[in-house]
Amino acid sequence: MNIKKYRFGEPFCTDSTVIDLPIEKESPDYISLKEDNLFISMSLKDSDAIYGLGEQMGGINKRGRKYRSFCSDDPCHTEEKEALYGAHNFFIISGETTVGYFIDFPGTVHYDMGFTVEDEITISLEGKDADFYVINGENELEVVKNFRELIGQSYMPPMWAFGYQQSRWSYANKEQVDAVVDGYEKADIPLDSVILDIDYMDHYKDFTIDDKAFPNFESYVAELKKKGIRLIPIIDAGVRCEDGFDVYEEGVKNNYFCKDRNGDDFKAAVWPGICCFPDYLKADTRKWFGDKFHTLTDKGIEGFWIDMNEPALFFSMEGFKKAVDFVKQYNGEDLDCWDFFEYRDQFSKLSNSIDDYKNMHHLDGKYSHYDVHNLYGYMMTRGVGECLPKDTLLFSRASCIGSHRYGGIWTGDNTSWWSHILLNLRMLPSLNMCGYIYTGADCGGFNGNASRELVIRWMQLSVFTPLFRNHSAIGTRNQEAYAFSNNKEFKDVIEVRYRLIPYLYDLAKKCAENNEMMFKPLAFEYKDALSKETDDQVLLGNEAMIAPVYQQNKSGRTVYLPEEMTFYKLSGNKVVHKEKLEKGVHFVNVALNEVPLFVRKGKKIPLCNTGKNVDNLDTTIVEYLEG
Amino acid sequence: MNIKKYRFGEPFCTDSTVIDLPIEKESPDYISLKEDNLFISMSLKDSDAIYGLGEQMGGINKRGRKYRSFCSDDPCHTEEKEALYGAHNFFIISGETTVGYFIDFPGTVHYDMGFTVEDEITISLEGKDADFYVINGENELEVVKNFRELIGQSYMPPMWAFGYQQSRWSYANKEQVDAVVDGYEKADIPLDSVILDIDYMDHYKDFTIDDKAFPNFESYVAELKKKGIRLIPIIDAGVRCEDGFDVYEEGVKNNYFCKDRNGDDFKAAVWPGICCFPDYLKADTRKWFGDKFHTLTDKGIEGFWIDMNEPALFFSMEGFKKAVDFVKQYNGEDLDCWDFFEYRDQFSKLSNSIDDYKNMHHLDGKYSHYDVHNLYGYMMTRGVGECLPKDTLLFSRASCIGSHRYGGIWTGDNTSWWSHILLNLRMLPSLNMCGYIYTGADCGGFNGNASRELVIRWMQLSVFTPLFRNHSAIGTRNQEAYAFSNNKEFKDVIEVRYRLIPYLYDLAKKCAENNEMMFKPLAFEYKDALSKETDDQVLLGNEAMIAPVYQQNKSGRTVYLPEEMTFYKLSGNKVVHKEKLEKGVHFVNVALNEVPLFVRKGKKIPLCNTGKNVDNLDTTIVEYLEG
Repeated sequence: MNIKKYRFGEPFCTDSTVIDLPIEKESPDYISLKEDNLFISMSLKDSDAIYGLGEQMGGINKRGRKYRSFCSDDPCHTEEKEALYGAHNFFIISGETTVGYFIDFPGTVHYDMGFTVEDEITISLEGKDADFYVINGENELEVVKNFRELIGQSYMPPMWAFGYQQSRWSYANKEQVDAVVDGYEKADIPLDSVILDIDYMDHYKDFTIDDKAFPNFESYVAELKKKGIRLIPIIDAGVRCEDGFDVYEEGVKNNYFCKDRNGDDFKAAVWPGICCFPDYLKADTRKWFGDKFHTLTDKGIEGFWIDMNEPALFFSMEGFKKAVDFVKQYNGEDLDCWDFFEYRDQFSKLSNSIDDYKNMHHLDGKYSHYDVHNLYGYMMTRGVGECLPKDTLLFSRASCIGSHRYGGIWTGDNTSWWSHILLNLRMLPSLNMCGYIYTGADCGGFNGNASRELVIRWMQLSVFTPLFRNHSAIGTRNQEAYAFSNNKEFKDVIEVRYRLIPYLYDLAKKCAENNEMMFKPLAFEYKDALSKETDDQVLLGNEAMIAPVYQQNKSGRTVYLPEEMTFYKLSGNKVVHKEKLEKGVHFVNVALNEVPLFVRKGKKIPLCNTGKNVDNLDTTIVEYLEG
Repeated sequence: MNIKKYRFGEPFCTDSTVIDLPIEKESPDYISLKEDNLFISMSLKDSDAIYGLGEQMGGINKRGRKYRSFCSDDPCHTEEKEALYGAHNFFIISGETTVGYFIDFPGTVHYDMGFTVEDEITISLEGKDADFYVINGENELEVVKNFRELIGQSYMPPMWAFGYQQSRWSYANKEQVDAVVDGYEKADIPLDSVILDIDYMDHYKDFTIDDKAFPNFESYVAELKKKGIRLIPIIDAGVRCEDGFDVYEEGVKNNYFCKDRNGDDFKAAVWPGICCFPDYLKADTRKWFGDKFHTLTDKGIEGFWIDMNEPALFFSMEGFKKAVDFVKQYNGEDLDCWDFFEYRDQFSKLSNSIDDYKNMHHLDGKYSHYDVHNLYGYMMTRGVGECLPKDTLLFSRASCIGSHRYGGIWTGDNTSWWSHILLNLRMLPSLNMCGYIYTGADCGGFNGNASRELVIRWMQLSVFTPLFRNHSAIGTRNQEAYAFSNNKEFKDVIEVRYRLIPYLYDLAKKCAENNEMMFKPLAFEYKDALSKETDDQVLLGNEAMIAPVYQQNKSGRTVYLPEEMTFYKLSGNKVVHKEKLEKGVHFVNVALNEVPLFVRKGKKIPLCNTGKNVDNLDTTIVEYLEG
């Protein structure tokens, strides 16, 4: 393998990699120790682009921004945000040379990728113990392949997980789920899964089901399954502290939970109220918690999403009481604005506070959570993934390289913003580089209200992403496909997904097995100047290019073709447009009920006939889109 | 005039219009009264676009979104925001017919412009008393001209106000201002003004100067003036309550301040701490407050920005004490997350609260502030504008149609986001439609840290906007042009501004005098399908088109030419590129030190030589950019 491994100090074993490489004797001169922290300083040439870093803001080229690896429950994905839910410390610098770098470190990493000074990269780790890998290869794709070999084969779900999923926070009872299934049935729009958010549980307690809301859950699961529809429940990271709740009591008894600095079980509040947090870094906790999922698989459940596993901590009682004490010392005097801000911030700063993370401890008190923070969601995914039956769907919110072997991810609580369609597109190649193949964003946007046009345009991208889930938050407008006027247009778009499933599933599987990318930047295959800069289009496999419309009030978009391609528009079970387009910049029209696809010269995309869901899909190929 | 006026109830006199039109007898059937509120319901055809609404989010075509007219101090301009600092109730529906509408109403107006249902507009006013105007014309430009005639001639500042302005919250003393002036001098970059944010005052008290920070202020103003540089101080809407402070005491004595519901002076806190709020809706208050500016003009000051005049209210003591009382009743029990959110929100919801706005009263208690909210910034601007010497620069944050006659506006506290370059561009024609000619955004972005590339790309747009001000918030990275590496490139861009000043000043003046638009959507002049959809380019006067690069890591951008144009790149005192480009879609390269400009066929743009500042600018035309 064309990889060099360097070791600094005594790194915590993350199991992010699966190959044990020899450690080089001399470490690169761009890495140094500054005040007990590892510090990387590199220079950039004008022509250098930076790729990778997984789930992050910014363009496909990550140059010119700051990033932070620190799994964060931050639902407001504005441009300047430096950290989202994942921690993916792999990147490639590509210019005159092409080299990949992987920092295997479980704590916080700060990246300045030519932001402060245009031609300088500075990376600082909050710690001195890490493994550092330099990955070589002929080109970006080879570097990625080498890196992916190092970190091990990516998770692949069963084929039905490629069907269209409808979610909302929350369909809180059988009647509401039935309404969704009926809505899709009546509109004759395909549907594979209905997602259950936190309200299906009894008081948000993991592995419980609210019996009043879902009487006879097991038979309901079977009933839906007969229609080809699966329920996908959520499981959160924290376990409600409640006497008599078996999961909580087992955890206490067997020492499965994280400790605080005094050695007691660490407690903080999330949706269920005050919770304990399974110490997923312990193998026996992982096994215990993973096996708990059998209570649901025994009822016929075949897929799960796991959430709040950064972990999100809304507050600790300790922090809350400090804030209350601060307020209580107010004795009636007039305030200036700075005093007021201080009062206000007592409460606003309590969520996901560093203080709480530092108080939380792993492995019987040996490690402060803060120092190994990025492993939490990863190790939860690992525990669940290792215990679930083969062919179970699993995707997580928090992630860290390594977790890609055990489950997929969705990209967290985005918003019904047009810019988040583009963000979705741009993350795809970065996530593929870091091992995540089964991934997608909340189609239509989670937070905020979506317009009909936004949802259908977003779907024109999501039909290509392995995870195709429409999800929205409590209090927002309904954004199920059938909920909008003229929902025939939604049917036309979603049906295209089903025609593509044999192709997409095979492609994803091949990419997982061969350490390849399903979505690639144009720059990875075409070496002209415009390809290098194009970051609102990506290549799909080796066969095609996708270029969704991501702006409001548009009849189409401008697209750059790095070579001659055949432009197809698909709608329902039909190919409605086919046109050879020359290399160059074109404006193409795309109606709301069409899916645009550009097939490369000499390549072809197989299509089956559309279906109602994957169980009822005839995957026989009936035609090819030829390039 | 091709305008019909309809009256509902007994409207508050806003003085937004300057022509007294007869009132039509029969009102349009799309306006009705619903539960004592006026309600407008219209249908949209597929081909209809909506233009106008001034300072708002969204594209140039405002269709498919919701908006709210309610002057709002909201510094986070994310896509979904419905209200910013201005209230501009004029819009055009353009399709098979082209008709303008103006709602002359001082309270809250809610717009659903085809968001909830694609082909429906619904507009609801919080009140039953309003004037409603329907403005006809041959085309969009004529409708705008007719409307602008109705609302009166736009404010124009002196020519030096078209020079480049450097701002920051804050240059807090003479040494810091000197450092800015020196920084620009040493880098040989032109500069016309340095803006003083709130810290130049003594305890943020209006019309005071911190003598320690600025000893001999008057002679310092004169000293800078000799160099051609002007200081532009800020004045906030609220007056600090402090015994012995003359402005406060005069206000109390003469009944100049807004009252609370008990008839006492209304108080709330902003930067100076607890403040009273001049009742700018009273003519005598306006005169008093406006005349106060002479304390500064007497010291040689020739320009002001006025701020916090939505008005922003951080909190009232009444609201704060309620929040404290809520917290004090906590007695140690464990909380669930919803309880916690309630505690947290006690403080977070205090700023700009409706409760406080409803408690604030105008005109000796006759009107609740909430009902006439949108007039506050307008009437402050009016008071100041009416009292200042002719040829004084004035621009405001809050605005409402009518205020355009007395001052310019900047578009408030934006962020160093790439998307805000585009937002800046898109607002320009909408603001022009509503009467605002002297306007611009905080170049480089106010909140957050800017990269060098962002600031210089943003400048490539701002060189064309009448207000060209680089401004950034406290705690952010320095973003003065000289503060970045290779600042010669900034010089090259800013110098282009000075070459354009004769053209830009004459154009703005002509647009103000003739009720024309300085920046026009392509759709207002070209009737092809692509022009209608293009909203990342605008026409400049009748002569040219601007199309800035607004994305990171790009060597240029794609541009649509609705007809043959000549593409120029300007850099420093030179025209570095000239190329005829055919009608169609092109990718054009634009280096960081170049300003792109597209001159229309048969038109020409005059250029003078660049200069150090406007006072020292030789405005003799030395060459023409010919189309």
